[in-house]
Amino acid sequence: MKYAESGVNIDAATRALARAKSAIRSTWDQRVKSDVGSFGGLYQPAPGEPYLVASVDGVGTKVKVAALAGRYDTVGQDLVNHCVDDILVQGAEPLFFLDYFATGILEEDVLPQVLAGLAQACRENGCALLGGETAEMPGLYAPGDFDLAGAIIGRVKPEDVLDGSRIRAGDRIWGLPSTGLHTNGFSLARRVLLDDAGLDLGTDPGALGTTLADALLAVHRSYLPDLRTLWAAFGRDAVRGLAHITGGGFYDNVPRVVPEGLCAVIDATAWQPLPIFRLIRDLGEVSAAEMYRVFNMGVGLCVFLPAGVDPVGAGVPAVPIGEVATGGERVRVILP
Amino acid sequence: MKYAESGVNIDAATRALARAKSAIRSTWDQRVKSDVGSFGGLYQPAPGEPYLVASVDGVGTKVKVAALAGRYDTVGQDLVNHCVDDILVQGAEPLFFLDYFATGILEEDVLPQVLAGLAQACRENGCALLGGETAEMPGLYAPGDFDLAGAIIGRVKPEDVLDGSRIRAGDRIWGLPSTGLHTNGFSLARRVLLDDAGLDLGTDPGALGTTLADALLAVHRSYLPDLRTLWAAFGRDAVRGLAHITGGGFYDNVPRVVPEGLCAVIDATAWQPLPIFRLIRDLGEVSAAEMYRVFNMGVGLCVFLPAGVDPVGAGVPAVPIGEVATGGERVRVILP
Repeated sequence: MKYAESGVNIDAATRALARAKSAIRSTWDQRVKSDVGSFGGLYQPAPGEPYLVASVDGVGTKVKVAALAGRYDTVGQDLVNHCVDDILVQGAEPLFFLDYFATGILEEDVLPQVLAGLAQACRENGCALLGGETAEMPGLYAPGDFDLAGAIIGRVKPEDVLDGSRIRAGDRIWGLPSTGLHTNGFSLARRVLLDDAGLDLGTDPGALGTTLADALLAVHRSYLPDLRTLWAAFGRDAVRGLAHITGGGFYDNVPRVVPEGLCAVIDATAWQPLPIFRLIRDLGEVSAAEMYRVFNMGVGLCVFLPAGVDPVGAGVPAVPIGEVATGGERVRVILP
Repeated sequence: MKYAESGVNIDAATRALARAKSAIRSTWDQRVKSDVGSFGGLYQPAPGEPYLVASVDGVGTKVKVAALAGRYDTVGQDLVNHCVDDILVQGAEPLFFLDYFATGILEEDVLPQVLAGLAQACRENGCALLGGETAEMPGLYAPGDFDLAGAIIGRVKPEDVLDGSRIRAGDRIWGLPSTGLHTNGFSLARRVLLDDAGLDLGTDPGALGTTLADALLAVHRSYLPDLRTLWAAFGRDAVRGLAHITGGGFYDNVPRVVPEGLCAVIDATAWQPLPIFRLIRDLGEVSAAEMYRVFNMGVGLCVFLPAGVDPVGAGVPAVPIGEVATGGERVRVILP
């Protein structure tokens, strides 16, 4: 099983976006401080001001699993935490969040639960839920289905922006644990676990230690508290780069922050994939390369630190997963 | 035919949102300067700074019409202009925009056209297309279907915020022309024109003067140039309030800016509804009250000006449509 067989074609999206790049750039002036493809967009409203950092995202077909399980209070948390992490990797702390909830026919009980989840995660991240849109679109969404997306706006001082340019050969790469799939790879997971294997969301198919619904709907982790700990313990400069492992896995996300001429060598034997990933791999006969391209495999954030800086001693549950070498390929994953 | 019969229940959404209000407010601190239900959210990052004004929206099932017509370069313009107008009514000028494009299986030619439309409108409004998310969600969207949403961030000085509080009895209400449905009421329009009457998008069903596709997909107008003209001609203070006529029509949108104890009396006989609205009314046997509750009827923005200020003389194509009286109901529409 490959990701494309589950109906998702990452390459087509990449090609379409490449074609549109010049149109996107045609809207920019000197206030835009990032390029296409960074985790969040950087914008300086006026010279001398802090940068606004903005990102928009959805939770993928995790919404389908939530709808199947009838559990509506977690996807909002997923979405906020995902967006917090997307701007965190550029050094930003969140200011506010906006949500977009779309469904066919509004079920009156669902929206308050979704909003409760959004609000909980916003409170936990110190981020205001400033606005939202609820769209009823009969004919576009099947009964019971919904989509959820959102945008986050944060701020960072220009001198604190993280873009990976300070990463050097010899830096250590630390992995921060994920809770599960977070918000990526659900089309493949659904295809393998639900459509093909016909597993029941309400039971443990074996070795998960929890129901399949709990494993699949585990909430995307916000790494903001961990980064605040690291910054407080070692100073802002000690954190040289951060990569949020989202769609495209290690292969697409790590190169977004590794400078030209360097290669992040990630040793995937350094940690055990979470049980949910082993289940998908075994039932779907998915190759190791494909698994590490689609999923985070248990590592939601890669932290680049100089040798000698020990995040574990500061109380951050990090695992050493690799280091930065010279080389042209930006990322190499040593597969198990 | 009523809007609820087309599958959209505005009241259910309103009730669900009311239940969630306290959760939303629980995420706020003193930096949030607006309440639930304003067109855009106001946020002051730090004391003394300008307010950021943020709004998120979609284009409703206009996306279904676009997909049916195979025309993908206009909905992006709709979305940007809609969002520009939503923050304009609070006095803000746009800084940047973020888009969310979701589809089942990505058709490689569609996304660049959608992005081209987004980029065109961003350029026209002086707004950077700062970021976006493309989501492939097989199983959630039918083949050929897509959804499009976006968030806009603008700025306004605290002293220039428009919230309607300066509206006074005797103020005149001017209507700025819409191009058509803009982005609201498409579920009802589709039901009446396409499902029930079986009209062909490619032909003129009579008296439109254009194809049905052209009439339905006419691009949402940005009123930013008109407001710049008014502000330049008469000063910021002359514009006492603005209401963007979106979902909920005159009945839901005008009260959002009219202070307690006042009533905006709108004389709907003062202008001719666009032909597309007459077609929907006649074929769907929709009552006048329902039409003015769902659609903008040809007026996309209501501008509240003191008596004696003449926008037409300044070159703005406004139509006098009413005035502000004392009274408890905030809005009264004199139906044709």
